Amino acid sequence: MSTVSYVVARYAETDQMGIVHHSVYPIWYEISRTDFVKSLGITYSQLEKMGVMTPLVDLHCHYSGVAKYEDQLKVECSISRLSPSRVEFSYRIFRQGEDLPLNTGTTLHAWVDAQTFRPVNMKKRFPDLYAKMENLLPR
Amino acid sequence: MSTVSYVVARYAETDQMGIVHHSVYPIWYEISRTDFVKSLGITYSQLEKMGVMTPLVDLHCHYSGVAKYEDQLKVECSISRLSPSRVEFSYRIFRQGEDLPLNTGTTLHAWVDAQTFRPVNMKKRFPDLYAKMENLLPR
Amino acid sequence: MSTVSYVVARYAETDQMGIVHHSVYPIWYEISRTDFVKSLGITYSQLEKMGVMTPLVDLHCHYSGVAKYEDQLKVECSISRLSPSRVEFSYRIFRQGEDLPLNTGTTLHAWVDAQTFRPVNMKKRFPDLYAKMENLLPR
Amino acid sequence: MSTVSYVVARYAETDQMGIVHHSVYPIWYEISRTDFVKSLGITYSQLEKMGVMTPLVDLHCHYSGVAKYEDQLKVECSISRLSPSRVEFSYRIFRQGEDLPLNTGTTLHAWVDAQTFRPVNMKKRFPDLYAKMENLLPR
Repeated sequence: MSTVSYVVARYAETDQMGIVHHSVYPIWYEISRTDFVKSLGITYSQLEKMGVMTPLVDLHCHYSGVAKYEDQLKVECSISRLSPSRVEFSYRIFRQGEDLPLNTGTTLHAWVDAQTFRPVNMKKRFPDLYAKMENLLPR
Repeated sequence: MSTVSYVVARYAETDQMGIVHHSVYPIWYEISRTDFVKSLGITYSQLEKMGVMTPLVDLHCHYSGVAKYEDQLKVECSISRLSPSRVEFSYRIFRQGEDLPLNTGTTLHAWVDAQTFRPVNMKKRFPDLYAKMENLLPR
Repeated sequence: MSTVSYVVARYAETDQMGIVHHSVYPIWYEISRTDFVKSLGITYSQLEKMGVMTPLVDLHCHYSGVAKYEDQLKVECSISRLSPSRVEFSYRIFRQGEDLPLNTGTTLHAWVDAQTFRPVNMKKRFPDLYAKMENLLPR
Repeated sequence: MSTVSYVVARYAETDQMGIVHHSVYPIWYEISRTDFVKSLGITYSQLEKMGVMTPLVDLHCHYSGVAKYEDQLKVECSISRLSPSRVEFSYRIFRQGEDLPLNTGTTLHAWVDAQTFRPVNMKKRFPDLYAKMENLLPR
């Protein structure tokens, strides 16, 4: 299962090469991750209020094309790995109407306590949410 | 009294016009404001820990020139207005070695409580810091 | 006449106050300006290809409320002043479902040549587009 | 050989977790890459004027700690792989005074023509610069 989000490249996101700056793609990933979490029946804001944060441990982006100002982009997000202490999301970004992604990537996150930033066992703390995510893993 | 800070224009700060994007200047103001507060003998981080935040009420930027990638810039910051509920800072940004600023601006901030976001009477809450700032106002 | 655009506040746009950073609002203005220009029957990308750029001369933002992560926002854009050498846009940003804007602002732009950055007389260079914009001015 | 650059975490770079947003680290890498190129006796701006651009192909960041507002950071940059068509830089980011990096990463870039975005054979086009970089590779 993957969710689909749409973004339009902003002028402020371009650089003097005339393309979207590479540091913007992790932000687009984040937008699609927000939508993915929402598809689980919870908002990421609620998750934070419930005391869980998900700081990044690893980020990988592969750029096979470039996005330009006003490009309409489709961002796919899916969950690719899950453990009680970690979760990895995978992303593919397509220019609207194209079959090959211009960017693919992954983000690995730790489940941590919002107050202490110490690891949280997600399976124990939120068994229902954890089971939902487990169901969405690729087989 | 004004403090002086130095920044170098980053590649990521440019846009496809080949100049620094206009939304970057408020961030440079913020850097110089951080240094200004430090010159009062307190860091802005400490101010927040003491329970005071300073969200923006008004921002004005005037662009008379453009900054480009790798430009070395000097940012001057001074305090231009002060009341128990508000503070205004003024900024001038120069390309190194130039006499005329390429950008000038002001930011007006409210003094608010970090928990409630309600107004704080700065003169009552921190009389010493307030007096220090009062002394720095232009005559 | 004003155009309406929609944005959702991104996580990356928040700061440690827990609200959207003030430097983000000019970027939201820009999104709505892009949509406004599109409503004139031309994209801003095309305008640049036709040799015209519109760097900022003045920016003013007034913050009367705060936006938070995942807030859905409506951005209204209209043209408020026009001359052969300058154009000013006005903006109002509302949280969805609210009647009072949480942010209002203006941006004043120069019409300049994309190669030389020298002033362009927009009325002479693009009379049709200029007339269209003139028609959209408030009476 | 590695170059050393210094950055101070900006308020605008924080997010509502109270830490520097993960999308900022690639921008800090870029600052140190700018300094690295300068250490070769050429600025990156000059390289672009000579007709060469270096868009990203791959980005990897590993986050082992967090940076906070006003943290003073040291960014080390070195060249880790080189071919006529590609170059990889490696980065380590330390909080001042600490021995263990809080972030490490790599960026892989293509050498492309600034006009056409087509691959450039860097060894043929700029043999002297290429030789200089080759000398800086780890043995």
